[in-house]
Amino acid sequence: MPEPLSEPLFEKIALVGIGLIGSSVARIIRKNNLGRHIAIATRSLETLERAKQLGLGDSYFAQAAEAVCDADLVIVSVPVGASQAIAKEIAPALKKGAILTDVGSTKSSVIAQMQPHIPEGVHFIPGHPLAGTEKSGPDAGFAELFENRWCIFTPLPGTDPQALEKLSQFWRLCGANIEIMDADHHDRTLAIVSHLPHIIAYNIVGTASDLETVTQSEVIKYSASGFRDFTRLAASDPTMWRDVCLHNKDAILEMLARFSEDLASLQKAIRWGDGDKLFDLFTHTRAIRRSIIEAGQEVDAPNFGRQAVEHQK
Amino acid sequence: MPEPLSEPLFEKIALVGIGLIGSSVARIIRKNNLGRHIAIATRSLETLERAKQLGLGDSYFAQAAEAVCDADLVIVSVPVGASQAIAKEIAPALKKGAILTDVGSTKSSVIAQMQPHIPEGVHFIPGHPLAGTEKSGPDAGFAELFENRWCIFTPLPGTDPQALEKLSQFWRLCGANIEIMDADHHDRTLAIVSHLPHIIAYNIVGTASDLETVTQSEVIKYSASGFRDFTRLAASDPTMWRDVCLHNKDAILEMLARFSEDLASLQKAIRWGDGDKLFDLFTHTRAIRRSIIEAGQEVDAPNFGRQAVEHQK
Repeated sequence: MPEPLSEPLFEKIALVGIGLIGSSVARIIRKNNLGRHIAIATRSLETLERAKQLGLGDSYFAQAAEAVCDADLVIVSVPVGASQAIAKEIAPALKKGAILTDVGSTKSSVIAQMQPHIPEGVHFIPGHPLAGTEKSGPDAGFAELFENRWCIFTPLPGTDPQALEKLSQFWRLCGANIEIMDADHHDRTLAIVSHLPHIIAYNIVGTASDLETVTQSEVIKYSASGFRDFTRLAASDPTMWRDVCLHNKDAILEMLARFSEDLASLQKAIRWGDGDKLFDLFTHTRAIRRSIIEAGQEVDAPNFGRQAVEHQK
Repeated sequence: MPEPLSEPLFEKIALVGIGLIGSSVARIIRKNNLGRHIAIATRSLETLERAKQLGLGDSYFAQAAEAVCDADLVIVSVPVGASQAIAKEIAPALKKGAILTDVGSTKSSVIAQMQPHIPEGVHFIPGHPLAGTEKSGPDAGFAELFENRWCIFTPLPGTDPQALEKLSQFWRLCGANIEIMDADHHDRTLAIVSHLPHIIAYNIVGTASDLETVTQSEVIKYSASGFRDFTRLAASDPTMWRDVCLHNKDAILEMLARFSEDLASLQKAIRWGDGDKLFDLFTHTRAIRRSIIEAGQEVDAPNFGRQAVEHQK
């Protein structure tokens, strides 16, 4: 993890939305002294109260516009479907020279929703830290969430290089690695590495809970034989994932079509007892996990290290 | 974990196959003193040599028939497609009164392959401990593998109750819980809780490695956003899973059909922007994970406890 700064990087940082991502950012800002003042805004009074109890910020607002006043960095961490409403709300209050970013899982849609409302002189840099867990809300955040994860920016033409560098520095100080790409490529990439896996996980959990011949309690009881792995992604925040599906539709539909084609072909191999084809596919996929472990994006411990956690108890 | 016995439960136990499951059984037999003598058989001389180096048994054989001689308990742990060949090979050497069991993931097929060859007086009790990791081979086993997992028996009509009770006692002393059901119900249940998840995982990893617009190195790099979860199941032993697909075809094809139906319906909701339908499905699936955690079949730690493992390093 990066070391704490002696002088904060920003005077005032406003966090609009204080769920898993927002509250993790708050914790790492505090821990590594990345901002002198943290202003927190969320529409939910209950969540705001909880953020206050947890001491995540220095000031707390139900109105996002109040929180972003005078802020040098504004980070919007809300379900992507709320991006336009937030942009409209905060636009008049944004300080000239401020950096505005977001953490949304879809980028073309967020840009289309926000960009038209951003005043001249504000540096809007769409971003996406690829980090998360299946938990949500301000209690779920932790300062190490972004460690060795990627943060992708999809800057608009004419983005100020200094602003981009300062925002990159911020995320590096959160532990993340930086990557730049265009919004369309981001959305296709995320459709396969993140959106399709979540949708498939939600779907299989739905299928399993809806059978006549095998009861739901049997599914639960015997889930350690494979099924439980899918339930983690399928326990993710429903609002967030509804919005991702609605706001990255084309790329997701394309990946779903490819997945279904491949599945039909695999199904045919099972029906016709084509053992060689099955063996080839099942062998090929093993190498990919090995590469992911070597890339430092996965633990090497068997079973995701679950056993280690179980035996700690 | 159960305590070690002062007197072993069996005089001689033969393990036919010494991969992840067989070698875990060997370790727990030794640890909890469940058998006085462990005879190990595997066709692969390399694996046999490794088992010897690891000190997993007391005697080692390339011919299964030699290992099962005089054994009171014989546990067959091979890919299910090899069941018939093993049954034919060991049948003449089995001791009268011996208990013969297996650990295969499909039961109707294993019964059809083995039962006709088992001599009168040998207690053949098909079994399936629902435990495993994505690793394979004799090095991958560990004594705690079966702890709090289920072991399902699918006994044939006329099974000797004493033999069934003794085998149950054996698996309980390995840490497992016992369940009895018929082979057909086992195969349907496992098709949904284990076989479908593995097939879907293999399939999505295949799809992701086969795109033109997103490179394989991007898939690997950004895999922590969801995809990596699937790579664990997709790293499982190819021979084992080829055989499962070939030997539980009907139940798997039924579950695949249901999954695809559900996916088509979900795809339609995405195409038509039906946010309410998406939200309902995504909410419903959350409860199932909660139940699995409450049933003690999953860890409650975020991200399967990966973080805890990473930070131990």
